[in-house]
Amino acid sequence: MKIIIAPDSFKESLTALEVAEAIETGFKRIFPHAEYVKVPMADGGEGTVQSLVDATQGKLMQTEVTTPLGNKVMATWGLSGDKQTAIIEMAAASGLHLVPLNQRNPLLTTSFGTGELIRATLDFGVNKIILGIGGSATNDGGVGMLQALGIRCLDHRGQEIGFGGKNLANIQQIDLSALDPRLQQVEIEVACDVTNPLCGDNGASAIFGPQKGANAEMIKQLDQALAHFAQQVKVLLGLNIRDQAGTGAAGGMGGGVLLLPKVRLKSGVDIVLDTVQLSHKIQDADLVITGEGRMDGQTAQGKTPVGVALVAKAANKPVIAIVGCLREDYEVVYDKGIDAVFPIIRQLDSLESTLKNGRENLISSAQNVARLYQLAQLNKNA
Amino acid sequence: MKIIIAPDSFKESLTALEVAEAIETGFKRIFPHAEYVKVPMADGGEGTVQSLVDATQGKLMQTEVTTPLGNKVMATWGLSGDKQTAIIEMAAASGLHLVPLNQRNPLLTTSFGTGELIRATLDFGVNKIILGIGGSATNDGGVGMLQALGIRCLDHRGQEIGFGGKNLANIQQIDLSALDPRLQQVEIEVACDVTNPLCGDNGASAIFGPQKGANAEMIKQLDQALAHFAQQVKVLLGLNIRDQAGTGAAGGMGGGVLLLPKVRLKSGVDIVLDTVQLSHKIQDADLVITGEGRMDGQTAQGKTPVGVALVAKAANKPVIAIVGCLREDYEVVYDKGIDAVFPIIRQLDSLESTLKNGRENLISSAQNVARLYQLAQLNKNA
Repeated sequence: MKIIIAPDSFKESLTALEVAEAIETGFKRIFPHAEYVKVPMADGGEGTVQSLVDATQGKLMQTEVTTPLGNKVMATWGLSGDKQTAIIEMAAASGLHLVPLNQRNPLLTTSFGTGELIRATLDFGVNKIILGIGGSATNDGGVGMLQALGIRCLDHRGQEIGFGGKNLANIQQIDLSALDPRLQQVEIEVACDVTNPLCGDNGASAIFGPQKGANAEMIKQLDQALAHFAQQVKVLLGLNIRDQAGTGAAGGMGGGVLLLPKVRLKSGVDIVLDTVQLSHKIQDADLVITGEGRMDGQTAQGKTPVGVALVAKAANKPVIAIVGCLREDYEVVYDKGIDAVFPIIRQLDSLESTLKNGRENLISSAQNVARLYQLAQLNKNA
Repeated sequence: MKIIIAPDSFKESLTALEVAEAIETGFKRIFPHAEYVKVPMADGGEGTVQSLVDATQGKLMQTEVTTPLGNKVMATWGLSGDKQTAIIEMAAASGLHLVPLNQRNPLLTTSFGTGELIRATLDFGVNKIILGIGGSATNDGGVGMLQALGIRCLDHRGQEIGFGGKNLANIQQIDLSALDPRLQQVEIEVACDVTNPLCGDNGASAIFGPQKGANAEMIKQLDQALAHFAQQVKVLLGLNIRDQAGTGAAGGMGGGVLLLPKVRLKSGVDIVLDTVQLSHKIQDADLVITGEGRMDGQTAQGKTPVGVALVAKAANKPVIAIVGCLREDYEVVYDKGIDAVFPIIRQLDSLESTLKNGRENLISSAQNVARLYQLAQLNKNA
């Protein structure tokens, strides 16, 4: 029997690899001679760097970059085991957690640090960059990131505009001549699971601005600045970044990143699935086990377990999910290829204690799933 | 496929029948054409009356009896569907919950009401009485119960001793002549799962006295009174109720009850198993599902799921338990015939809300157990 274990992390408790190891431990008590393939998964959001480093036997790297407010921070990113792929989470350089609550102001915050991170990975000679863009503190259309990579955004006096979403309103020229030439050779896959356009009522500023500290007045100003940026990009570069689905992701990073040469916006879980080659690994499997910290109706919208299940179902494999907790509306996942779901909580307890017992509860649940699986098969023989 | 569903109640949330119905509901979503046999179970403790009434299509009865302090209360008991068996929980007449916290004093409390309940069932012409003796407020060696049934316990002046554990010290004569004659024809099975003797360091007073309100001084007095009672029973009736395992149960009720003609102390779950004829029903089953509100190491000590599992294993049937919560030390149940265990809690929540969602969580868990069971069997074919 070959069992693929491809879970997401359990946030605040266990990495995806640790989840996979715990499930393996529980299963091995019942099926000690089965073949286990552990595939740490992610969906392009938090934990993607760790999971893909673990999945490819890569390593974590650290680079000093500029925070959204212009300070310095050591940002962690991942280099795949074959050193060909860099995995970056925008939040490591430009994340909301890097800005104190009382200083959150997307008129001022810059994505420059994310550009520095990209540039740092180029120094390692990668030919592919995976960029997760969740959790950003910025609403600058990715212009800070572009600036860090050599693109010059100039005002009417020919001066570089400053950092922050408000200065996009001053862009009169966009000069690509100093763009880091290595980017011509490097494929960038941007994990993007929202469909918001850059501007308007459903755009970056209106939808994601508030959580970054923008009030109604600021949202209006930011939206107009992004619209001006998009207009200049269209006029000067002939590129439409205003209305395409996903360009509004991460304060417009989803739009700005399209100015780079070899960029694709893609579902986060699909990027991870391709990177870990799950489809290939699954071909001769008998059973696929996935999981995540919390399963709910959102899981059906591009989260890891359903991504794994879709690949598994394409190969006609059964899929079991073992999850940290399970919300009322989870049952939609059945239609997405997940055959059965088991939450691991064994008793009411504090959140702290429950998170601390995550590994033990996971082992216990996996063991019982394995026990029932074995029992049902033996009973079939009878 | 024939599936036996034989759970205990989930205390404070669902009766055993409600648990069985919820499990059936979840299973039927996956196996709509299976045959389901619901067998509400209990272990002789709280919930036994309800479960056996449900299991036998009997009914709940009410009788006014004397509380441990001499007040009156309507006590509920059960009459089996065939009207041949009465099911009594001592706690309904003589329970701790009937005595306010500040009046708990086992020197004074009497088990008289339990005797009244027994007498009431005789009026219905039953030929068997099942008596659960947990949760009592008394430490009177069952003497109050005996008095209600006609046995006279007299002091040195030939006067009836009064109520309460302390008056046992005054017994000089025991007169059986007025014992209700119908008891000669009625089998009484007493559900008793403790092995404590009537007296001594491990006896009724020392072990169970404190929870009934006895301090160290009172425990000593009560123990001496029980020892005197046992001595008189030995001298006057030639019966040893002092050292036998279980005679210390329920403030010595386990001992006193032995003065009645056709009494047996027996494991509670065994009494229930016999009454519901589980062994017979299980013969042609494919799968047995049990459960209880809280599974832990104690479950292996004569609780319902393990009782069910032992019967099932004697017939070589697989056993799955679905439980309200699961404590760390539960794994000993595997050695007792339970093949796999699934807790139903899906997320951290208040106890109140969790109890309220018990039915829904149970249906969800049962459905997923059924899903995995089906999946494993289909995968076996592949």
